[in-house]
Amino acid sequence: MIGGGRGAFIGAVHRLAAIMDGQAELVAGAFSSDAARSQASGADLWLDPARVYGSYREMAWAEAARPAAERLDFVVIVTPNHQHFPPAKLFLEAGFNVVCDKPATFDLAEALALRKIVARTKKIFVLTHNYTGNAMVKQARELVRQGALGAIRKIVVEYPQGWLSTRLEATGQKQAEWRTDPKRSGAAGCLGDIGTHAENLARYVTGLKIDALCADLTTFVSGRKLDDDGNILVRYCGGAKGVLHASQISVGEENNLNLRVYGTKAGLEWHQEHPNELIVKYPDRPAQIWRRGNGYVGAQAQRFTRVPAGHPEGYLEAFGNIYREAFRAIAAEVAGQRRPKDLDFPTIDDGVYGMAFIETAVKSARRGARWVKFPKV
Amino acid sequence: MIGGGRGAFIGAVHRLAAIMDGQAELVAGAFSSDAARSQASGADLWLDPARVYGSYREMAWAEAARPAAERLDFVVIVTPNHQHFPPAKLFLEAGFNVVCDKPATFDLAEALALRKIVARTKKIFVLTHNYTGNAMVKQARELVRQGALGAIRKIVVEYPQGWLSTRLEATGQKQAEWRTDPKRSGAAGCLGDIGTHAENLARYVTGLKIDALCADLTTFVSGRKLDDDGNILVRYCGGAKGVLHASQISVGEENNLNLRVYGTKAGLEWHQEHPNELIVKYPDRPAQIWRRGNGYVGAQAQRFTRVPAGHPEGYLEAFGNIYREAFRAIAAEVAGQRRPKDLDFPTIDDGVYGMAFIETAVKSARRGARWVKFPKV
Amino acid sequence: MIGGGRGAFIGAVHRLAAIMDGQAELVAGAFSSDAARSQASGADLWLDPARVYGSYREMAWAEAARPAAERLDFVVIVTPNHQHFPPAKLFLEAGFNVVCDKPATFDLAEALALRKIVARTKKIFVLTHNYTGNAMVKQARELVRQGALGAIRKIVVEYPQGWLSTRLEATGQKQAEWRTDPKRSGAAGCLGDIGTHAENLARYVTGLKIDALCADLTTFVSGRKLDDDGNILVRYCGGAKGVLHASQISVGEENNLNLRVYGTKAGLEWHQEHPNELIVKYPDRPAQIWRRGNGYVGAQAQRFTRVPAGHPEGYLEAFGNIYREAFRAIAAEVAGQRRPKDLDFPTIDDGVYGMAFIETAVKSARRGARWVKFPKV
Amino acid sequence: MIGGGRGAFIGAVHRLAAIMDGQAELVAGAFSSDAARSQASGADLWLDPARVYGSYREMAWAEAARPAAERLDFVVIVTPNHQHFPPAKLFLEAGFNVVCDKPATFDLAEALALRKIVARTKKIFVLTHNYTGNAMVKQARELVRQGALGAIRKIVVEYPQGWLSTRLEATGQKQAEWRTDPKRSGAAGCLGDIGTHAENLARYVTGLKIDALCADLTTFVSGRKLDDDGNILVRYCGGAKGVLHASQISVGEENNLNLRVYGTKAGLEWHQEHPNELIVKYPDRPAQIWRRGNGYVGAQAQRFTRVPAGHPEGYLEAFGNIYREAFRAIAAEVAGQRRPKDLDFPTIDDGVYGMAFIETAVKSARRGARWVKFPKV
Repeated sequence: MIGGGRGAFIGAVHRLAAIMDGQAELVAGAFSSDAARSQASGADLWLDPARVYGSYREMAWAEAARPAAERLDFVVIVTPNHQHFPPAKLFLEAGFNVVCDKPATFDLAEALALRKIVARTKKIFVLTHNYTGNAMVKQARELVRQGALGAIRKIVVEYPQGWLSTRLEATGQKQAEWRTDPKRSGAAGCLGDIGTHAENLARYVTGLKIDALCADLTTFVSGRKLDDDGNILVRYCGGAKGVLHASQISVGEENNLNLRVYGTKAGLEWHQEHPNELIVKYPDRPAQIWRRGNGYVGAQAQRFTRVPAGHPEGYLEAFGNIYREAFRAIAAEVAGQRRPKDLDFPTIDDGVYGMAFIETAVKSARRGARWVKFPKV
Repeated sequence: MIGGGRGAFIGAVHRLAAIMDGQAELVAGAFSSDAARSQASGADLWLDPARVYGSYREMAWAEAARPAAERLDFVVIVTPNHQHFPPAKLFLEAGFNVVCDKPATFDLAEALALRKIVARTKKIFVLTHNYTGNAMVKQARELVRQGALGAIRKIVVEYPQGWLSTRLEATGQKQAEWRTDPKRSGAAGCLGDIGTHAENLARYVTGLKIDALCADLTTFVSGRKLDDDGNILVRYCGGAKGVLHASQISVGEENNLNLRVYGTKAGLEWHQEHPNELIVKYPDRPAQIWRRGNGYVGAQAQRFTRVPAGHPEGYLEAFGNIYREAFRAIAAEVAGQRRPKDLDFPTIDDGVYGMAFIETAVKSARRGARWVKFPKV
Repeated sequence: MIGGGRGAFIGAVHRLAAIMDGQAELVAGAFSSDAARSQASGADLWLDPARVYGSYREMAWAEAARPAAERLDFVVIVTPNHQHFPPAKLFLEAGFNVVCDKPATFDLAEALALRKIVARTKKIFVLTHNYTGNAMVKQARELVRQGALGAIRKIVVEYPQGWLSTRLEATGQKQAEWRTDPKRSGAAGCLGDIGTHAENLARYVTGLKIDALCADLTTFVSGRKLDDDGNILVRYCGGAKGVLHASQISVGEENNLNLRVYGTKAGLEWHQEHPNELIVKYPDRPAQIWRRGNGYVGAQAQRFTRVPAGHPEGYLEAFGNIYREAFRAIAAEVAGQRRPKDLDFPTIDDGVYGMAFIETAVKSARRGARWVKFPKV
Repeated sequence: MIGGGRGAFIGAVHRLAAIMDGQAELVAGAFSSDAARSQASGADLWLDPARVYGSYREMAWAEAARPAAERLDFVVIVTPNHQHFPPAKLFLEAGFNVVCDKPATFDLAEALALRKIVARTKKIFVLTHNYTGNAMVKQARELVRQGALGAIRKIVVEYPQGWLSTRLEATGQKQAEWRTDPKRSGAAGCLGDIGTHAENLARYVTGLKIDALCADLTTFVSGRKLDDDGNILVRYCGGAKGVLHASQISVGEENNLNLRVYGTKAGLEWHQEHPNELIVKYPDRPAQIWRRGNGYVGAQAQRFTRVPAGHPEGYLEAFGNIYREAFRAIAAEVAGQRRPKDLDFPTIDDGVYGMAFIETAVKSARRGARWVKFPKV
């Protein structure tokens, strides 16, 4: 693991998600660029101090030198955004598979470069857009693919949070600090942090790509350097229209990612805070509440289910599902087999797309919220 | 009553709402421009055939000629939009008070003209933006006015319906026919029919006016002449940002008007389909569910409550509340008193504002969804 | 109207419900046994003082003496329970139809006597178990009758309120006073006031009668003379089992009547506080949310619908539906026709059943909550 | 691990829950009494075949013989109920700590015997009443303990499921088979399997013990040998009253355990299927939605929180919280320290209480659902 030391949030999540199915074990880490802090974090995690490093470079060299039997199957990168590309490049080129937190990189140029590296090294690169790991999100996608919704007309995807409604970054809170710092976070704040999840979720379920968008990004909290709220109109390729809005100043909201999709035949609705349910709405019959774990649920959603219906799964299980698929890919590699064709995890292509989304939205916003064509990436 | 004959929807609603508190009685009507049909509707309603007319003009002349004791206290106009202004003008100028369905007129020019007529005649003009009649909407406004939300930053107002997701107007359905006909409905379809309710609701609760907007209006159903879906970015005077979207092709949605407002101190959320509840969200304490009829509810919301907490009120009561306030104004007039200062119903000013909203949004949409400054009206 | 003067709750509800469809008008009343108070209430309602009386006896004599054309079509009794039977008897025997609030009478003996009077006079007697007037309750009954649930196994019906969790009757609150007074309310408090609604609702939907019950009634508030909470185990004829509990000390609850029914094929769930929805649950497919006003809803539920789907109806509309059916019966009588066979309102039979329910439960409770066989009534 | 081989449900859950925090590792198991099947299960779990056994006895002997450094810290028993006591006794007496699935034993006598063994051996015995591991259940208990609810008056606890609404045990489904078999499950079916969870949850939150109960247990599915539904009236020590009902024939229900508690000052409501929320209701102010992970949540609930508010936790995390506390106890033992005083997991005392609950309810039911005094245990 690169990053994710004491005080980090997402590092702990990755560790829980990765070990959840008993398929992985944490054995090495560069948790901080401060060697002592990294060792302290490693000690918290009962790691062998010899495999705890003061930098990812040091770790890459040392681990790459280990005998094959002891080699890491994959490396997890959970640093702030500006520190995704350098370790990803280094580890991929050193022959390691990489699981990386989102957004993929600091900017689009890095993402495009990383895509080339992934292609060249033929290693596995997994981007943890974790919400698509939810079983009922997979069910939603299956319904769309089966044509149950007909042709899609409208997509509403929201990601309101409220935790940055005051200037939390000025209090020393680490999470807030780097997310609102353009040097570490990139060109966008809220949009990069959670807007990309919203875009990814909508695209995962519907398969629709963006033709053009018009983004009104705002920094409400005085003194903040990046956007903390964004409202975006979207025109999808093929004619569907959409609204995407994300916010970190929607006071009282926790992590209320949600998606509604309306087609010619039916609509659907999913809420991350109630992830075990998928509501399907029809023009001429009662709405249905599809619930995870039931026999009527499709094969793909069943495959990502750990406990029976009525025993709620949550954020960690969805996150773990990204890892579960990563492990299927890694297992195939270890076994010298071809990767399964039905692998279901976000890749560098999603990373490139997400970075293009950020850059396009920021470009639109800087032009006064004018429509900008989505680039071919 | 002008319009609202057999087969109409909103005429029956107005009648129920108006008589709900036992304060009004229907005594005359021009329910259709076809005299026989008008008489048939009048007979359904047990009216004296002598006071059922084949045209609103005929009715205005005949009713104005009656002795003072038998005179109508007010006239209700529930015709399609293009037939709002002519009867409103006629009756106001003949000395009658007018209750009129929304949107106020066919276009902004008519609304501005009507405003002058109202000013000149000094009669009462009530526009039935009925959703603002809900007790918990009034509570929401009171919370905003008391500063409980702090400075408002973000407004999300939605009005999804699904009933026009097919070309219903081609089947002879009357409601669909005129609403999708630019000659009767005006420059906008969905936007005029329900988008104006959304705008009005947001403004009623927050008091905020629009500085500029960017509207992407779409006609999804082939052959339809007006928009059936609209997504709008809003910049409010004073710096708040907003998203307003309305749709009649959101399949499976019924009448899902809802509002979220986020300020610096708290947020609130109200759903028309669950109108007895108002959710208030805080950054640092549990969200609250305010429910109509309880002792902790403010005076204004209490004033518009008919039955105790837990005994759900609905659409008709909210509609009736608009009438209840209209009757307060009318009673003052009848008694020769000044109008109460705290009258709480939508006026011709709301009508003008709503028509300006339609025209501005349509202008934005026709320019390819570019930002348009909201006019001073 | 008998009773329902100033300060009463249910009188105002009856008036709203009765006039809602424009089919009835209040013309006379004995609102209080104090003549001056009665006149004051009559004046509030704009009644002709000549038809406002100081006692129901006086009213019966005077109104019976009026010419046929001016005669009351029906009388509404909204007095406390001990004053149901005497006016009901008097008016029925004087040839008036009667609408009476629940529970039917002070005790079972009175109800049995009243049944004989109704049979003998052949007049219409309507008992306002208003919750069965809800459209989606009617839909629930239709689903049961169609066999959609299969054979019924389990019924859970609850009616929690919290308004009597303190000794409100000691503060002079009228509603609390008579409801907790055994001389006016009868043998039961909470059980008679709302437990009977719960029993009636379950029976209306399922058609099942009680074979035996075991009732644990409690008076939690010190100094109170009647039960304020009751938990009852029920064995239905035919083998279904049930739980019925009602409470007026469930602090924070408003009027949370709700019903769940489980059969061999499906289950259903309805909540009075969200009356426009009926949830139907299946073993092998997604649960459905049936919503009032949609095309898929059955004929009986459609017949009791005033406004379209998504425009919430509430307590008053359901109450009005009882009146609507009463008016169908009265209209047939006025027209000299037979009563329609499909009349759907609670009758004196429901009244007798409800009083038997109270007596049986009280008997069980007094024996220490032992099982008591339900009497043949 | 004893039991929990291929096809078992709860074994997998225990494994996930135990490793969730990276504090435990599965190293040995007797997954089946068929040695080959046990080995197959062990292989699925990548265990050393030398530590996979064909019986728990074999395992106890072999593992007890290992050097201290390699010794198991605890043994997990996830066999059907009749196989709880024998291995628990054996392992406790061999010096192992034991985590055991609920209900504790086959009958009360065994539970009493086990309590003596636990006392004598001074080993740790943890009973996995997992639902009390939920953070918001802990918050509920904290609110009760702080007096926020005042004196408790009424408790409603429900546990409806629908999965046994047909004779599933006749189809070879393992879970259904043993749960409906009196030789393996004990004197009760539904009551033992889930009714005990309901009782435990209510007692955990309120601290109230049962004075007497009246249980109506039913077997609805023809051919089934144990109850599949139970409705119970409860009188708690101190005067509170309650309703407890559990069902496995409530068709369409999944795992809908829920609790409502009403005191003199406030009420609360928690639903296992939406575990991150706790609703608190007041007589005189808006109901509150307490949500896991927020700063306003009490210390005990915070201690059992893994991810931030809005990132839903579920069944596994709650189960893992039982293990987390078990590990605190085990860590203290390993370190030679006293057990922490604030340990928060169900113990053999809860097991004895639960078995007494089963026996008392079955006794009541067999007497025709008469009141039975709860024994001193």
